[in-house]
Amino acid sequence: MKKATEPRQSTRRDQILDVAARLFQKGYRATSLDDVAAEIGITRPALYYYFNAKEDILAAIYERAVGALIDRAAPIFASKLAPDVLLCRLVQVHVRTMLKEQPIVRVFFQEKDSLGVDASRSVKAKEVAFTKMMAATVRAGQRQKLFRPGNPELVVNAILGMLIWLYQWYRPERHVAQEIEDVFCGLLIKGLVVSGSVEISPAVFERRQGSG
Amino acid sequence: MKKATEPRQSTRRDQILDVAARLFQKGYRATSLDDVAAEIGITRPALYYYFNAKEDILAAIYERAVGALIDRAAPIFASKLAPDVLLCRLVQVHVRTMLKEQPIVRVFFQEKDSLGVDASRSVKAKEVAFTKMMAATVRAGQRQKLFRPGNPELVVNAILGMLIWLYQWYRPERHVAQEIEDVFCGLLIKGLVVSGSVEISPAVFERRQGSG
Repeated sequence: MKKATEPRQSTRRDQILDVAARLFQKGYRATSLDDVAAEIGITRPALYYYFNAKEDILAAIYERAVGALIDRAAPIFASKLAPDVLLCRLVQVHVRTMLKEQPIVRVFFQEKDSLGVDASRSVKAKEVAFTKMMAATVRAGQRQKLFRPGNPELVVNAILGMLIWLYQWYRPERHVAQEIEDVFCGLLIKGLVVSGSVEISPAVFERRQGSG
Repeated sequence: MKKATEPRQSTRRDQILDVAARLFQKGYRATSLDDVAAEIGITRPALYYYFNAKEDILAAIYERAVGALIDRAAPIFASKLAPDVLLCRLVQVHVRTMLKEQPIVRVFFQEKDSLGVDASRSVKAKEVAFTKMMAATVRAGQRQKLFRPGNPELVVNAILGMLIWLYQWYRPERHVAQEIEDVFCGLLIKGLVVSGSVEISPAVFERRQGSG
C-alpha cells in the first residue's frame, strides 16, 4: 500500500515514458524515437537500451497507467468496506490516478488503436479488472438493498463514463481533486435531488410515450 | 418539433454521409473519396457534386449529428419544465440522438482533430449550446433548492461523461434505449442509495486524510 502513495521513483525509464507521453499528446504518429531521445538529451542507442520501438513505449505508458490504477484499487477492494464507501473510494482512486497520470491520460484514450495485440490484451485485462471491482460493488449494494435495483452493467458503464471523461475537461489550474471526488461521489450515492425536502416530479420516472 | 421525430429523409447527401461514416469507422485516414464513391456505386464526379474533399464529408457528419441534438434539445429546454424533469428529458434526447447517429458517433469522438478550423468551431459552438442547457438546468435546480449544492460545472461534466461514454460501450443487440435512459436518469436524480431505508455510511462523505 505504501508504494501507491509514494511519489513515483524517477528512473530513466519513467523519464522516457513521461517525455514520450508529452510528445505523443501532440500527435503519436508524428513523433519519432529520435524526437524522444532529443527531448531527453540522450543518444538513440541509449534510448534503445530501454525500448526497441515507439510501440513499446506506448505499451509501457499504458501498462504503467492502468497498472497504477489496479495497484491502488485492489487493496481497497479487498478491505471489506460497505458498498457505498467502497464505491466512493474506487471513484477517488480513479480520479487520483487520472490526475497523477497526466499528461498520459489523453494519449491513453486516443491512441488505443495504435497498441500492438499483446499490449492491447494486457491493458484490456487490467481495465476489465477495475470494471469488475465496480460491478461487484454495485451488485453487493443491490444485494444488501442499500442500492436501488437497476441493470448493474448499465450502472457501471454510467459510472465509468463519468470517471473517464475527466480526461477531456480536467484542467489542473481550474479543478481540485477533492471537489471532483465529492461531486462524483455525491451524485452517485445521493443523486441531485434533495430527498425529503421536495418531491421528485412524478414525470421524471414516467414512461414517455411517442418520444425520441 | 415534428421534424425531429420523423425518420430522416434519405437523400443522396445523407446517404453519402451514412456510407462515409461507416467507412471512416474503420479508419478515417485510410478512407478515400474513391472508397466512398465505390461503396455507394456512384462516380467520383457525382460525389464531387456534393462534397469537394474528405474533410468536407467529415465536417458534414459532425454538423448533422450535433445539429440533430440541438434541434431536439432546444424546444424541450424552452418548454419550462421543472429542472428534474428537464434534466431527464435532456438525458433522453442525448441518448436517443447518439443511438440514432450510430455509426457516426464513434467517428465523432475519435476524429475531432481531423476537422478543419471552421467546422471545428461550428461543431464546438453547438456542443457548448447543449452544455449550457445542462448547466442552466442544474443551476435552476440548485436555485430552487430542488438540487443539492455543488459546483455546477463539475456536475455537468459528470453528466456529459456519463452520456458521451455510451459511444464506447453501446451495442444495439445488447442494450435498450429506454433502460439506459432510466438508469442514467435514476442515478442522476436519486443516486444509488435507497434514501430512508438505510443510512448512508458517514464515511462516504468524510474528508479522507492522507489518501491519494
